[in-house]
Amino acid sequence: MLTFDILEYQERLKRTKESMERQGIEVLLITDPANMNYLSGYDAWSFYVHQMLVVILDEPQPIWIGRLMDANGAKSTTWMYDEKILAYPDYYVHSDVYHPMAYIAEMLKQMGHGKRTIGVEMDQYYFSAKAYIKLQENLPDASFKDATSLVNWIRIIKSDQEIEFMRRAGKIAENAMQAGVSTIHNGSRECDAAASIYYELVKGTEEFGGDYPSIVPMLPTGENTSAPHLTWSDQHFEEGNAVIVELAGCYKRYHVPLARTVSIGQPTERLERLADIVREGIENVLARAKPGIYLEELEEAWRESTKKYGIEKESRLGYSTGVNYPPDWGEHTASIRKGDQTVLQPNMTFHFIPGLWFDNDGIEMSETFRVTEDGVEMFTHYPRELIIQSPYHLPDDSKGIIS
Amino acid sequence: MLTFDILEYQERLKRTKESMERQGIEVLLITDPANMNYLSGYDAWSFYVHQMLVVILDEPQPIWIGRLMDANGAKSTTWMYDEKILAYPDYYVHSDVYHPMAYIAEMLKQMGHGKRTIGVEMDQYYFSAKAYIKLQENLPDASFKDATSLVNWIRIIKSDQEIEFMRRAGKIAENAMQAGVSTIHNGSRECDAAASIYYELVKGTEEFGGDYPSIVPMLPTGENTSAPHLTWSDQHFEEGNAVIVELAGCYKRYHVPLARTVSIGQPTERLERLADIVREGIENVLARAKPGIYLEELEEAWRESTKKYGIEKESRLGYSTGVNYPPDWGEHTASIRKGDQTVLQPNMTFHFIPGLWFDNDGIEMSETFRVTEDGVEMFTHYPRELIIQSPYHLPDDSKGIIS
Repeated sequence: MLTFDILEYQERLKRTKESMERQGIEVLLITDPANMNYLSGYDAWSFYVHQMLVVILDEPQPIWIGRLMDANGAKSTTWMYDEKILAYPDYYVHSDVYHPMAYIAEMLKQMGHGKRTIGVEMDQYYFSAKAYIKLQENLPDASFKDATSLVNWIRIIKSDQEIEFMRRAGKIAENAMQAGVSTIHNGSRECDAAASIYYELVKGTEEFGGDYPSIVPMLPTGENTSAPHLTWSDQHFEEGNAVIVELAGCYKRYHVPLARTVSIGQPTERLERLADIVREGIENVLARAKPGIYLEELEEAWRESTKKYGIEKESRLGYSTGVNYPPDWGEHTASIRKGDQTVLQPNMTFHFIPGLWFDNDGIEMSETFRVTEDGVEMFTHYPRELIIQSPYHLPDDSKGIIS
Repeated sequence: MLTFDILEYQERLKRTKESMERQGIEVLLITDPANMNYLSGYDAWSFYVHQMLVVILDEPQPIWIGRLMDANGAKSTTWMYDEKILAYPDYYVHSDVYHPMAYIAEMLKQMGHGKRTIGVEMDQYYFSAKAYIKLQENLPDASFKDATSLVNWIRIIKSDQEIEFMRRAGKIAENAMQAGVSTIHNGSRECDAAASIYYELVKGTEEFGGDYPSIVPMLPTGENTSAPHLTWSDQHFEEGNAVIVELAGCYKRYHVPLARTVSIGQPTERLERLADIVREGIENVLARAKPGIYLEELEEAWRESTKKYGIEKESRLGYSTGVNYPPDWGEHTASIRKGDQTVLQPNMTFHFIPGLWFDNDGIEMSETFRVTEDGVEMFTHYPRELIIQSPYHLPDDSKGIIS
């Protein structure tokens, strides 16, 4: 059932330990589900309870610690020996008396790690303030170091197999975008379009199935295009609406996001103009991308391309993406923005999303790309333009079964 | 665009402030997205960045603070005045230099709350260890109190409109279960069944659309039925497989979970026997439920019903459910387990899921119910039995469009 060859997991572990050594960390407690998956293969929707992967500098296999009912899932999805899977009893779950981190601290002490230097992911969704305090209380002789993003930075360069997974995710993203776009017309509802998108995302292709994306499809419509993170309602689409569709194809937890803006019927001149500016900006940025440059140079290329039109973008233009779990498909490492001096290297992968949001409208058009030896490879090939849909539902050549 | 009448939000806020007063909290920083939604109406997929709702004991409206690009969404989904929507700049997002909580602390000081008693949700997914430390560092004169679940406990008794939303979610759950079950047969893949389920969950009915559930459909198959939180793969189903389907219908963020176990072709005698035991247990528990009893009495009823068959269940039997966001549809308050002395009251709502997991197999059958004046109301009416599916795909009366 392993997703990658065991040698790939061991290479990832080796690089993690090198980074631990550089930072003076002897024991690393990994609570980010994407990092747990990356190093061990663990894949289950159990991150709503406290759990972790423990990487110990001088031990060959990491240890998984979680809820008792999830131990079987850990045994079946990870590469470690069964005795490396440890669990806490169920009465520790969502209790205001017992806390899993107190139990886990006791286990760490018994393993002889009570006085070591312990790395924790301090700014990560599934490592709560209370989790940290309970660890500190119950490991009074340990010293703690912030290891937020230690593993995330190792994830930033993908292996060839990871790239292949992302190509599959890209194919799924294209199909889902097409299914969504062809459901957007007078008479259908936002939820109908979202349902068509989800069907394609999860079904995948004949050759390979889809996985759930870490963020649901977002579908802000009409005035709400000014608010990028609204999901869908059961309102009907109407002629004249603009609709932003942002989604990601996902294959075995690897993501390829894709965003487009759709106009139902004739778009406003303003929207057409904005679409031209954004497309030109995207092309100028992609032409600049290659190994050896700083990431901030891409922001500079965008700024040069758009400032002549009076466009000033406050928010970042994109971020590293790949393996992930809800609530985010971004890797929380490099961002395409001013000041980011990450040097581009082959097999880095970015979601480049120069969205523009104003008081009463907005536009999104995005691409996910890989840095190659001398430029970029696109993961999707969907028309890079403002999509104009007929307000009337006509049978078309949509790949979506539902339309 | 408000989901509930403004008076309902104000009643919720009043009860929150009463609880704050009892606990000596002057300013409550709410970071749980379900609690933010419950008090303000805020609904967007933006919880992957730091954000909060600030409830101040002596001020009539709460304050929303989040990322600049999400402020428009807050203005359009909440009941507060626009000037109650405040934002931090984008360069604070996923940066290792700037932290949003440092900015927010500064805002709180400028509002005059720098020396007050501040409640924070210490054990909540979206309040990280670092978020807490940054608040403490930047509000050195404030004192902090743990307010985990303060608002969750107010959510435990539903209003009539919330119950109506859950009835709609129940209808969606039934349809999705039917769509999933009818896709489970030789030749289809786990991802095909998950896609059919998702389509129904999101489309909803002709009368009302569906919303995304806080947990994806889970579909452990074959030996993996021993591991409840595995999602789906692209493996083909085979005759003789048992498949556990656990899902939730969702309407405007309100959930009704539902689980069943499906056998493709003739089930083993063992599975049939387990299904009988679980069904009998469910019936005995539901017969006992009514206002005035302790929640732990339901666990007692289960134990009495099943111990004669040699069944001993280690994990809890269920939990309060309702409005929620990923990664959980449970409310983190009352659990159906030994020692829980919550007194049942009308309009409490529970997901009762007495799953049994063994070394190599497992079974799930669940019901979501409301406590009425004298017993219970079920939110779904799906056959309470082991579902036996023909291994061969035959056209049937499935409500799912895809089968």
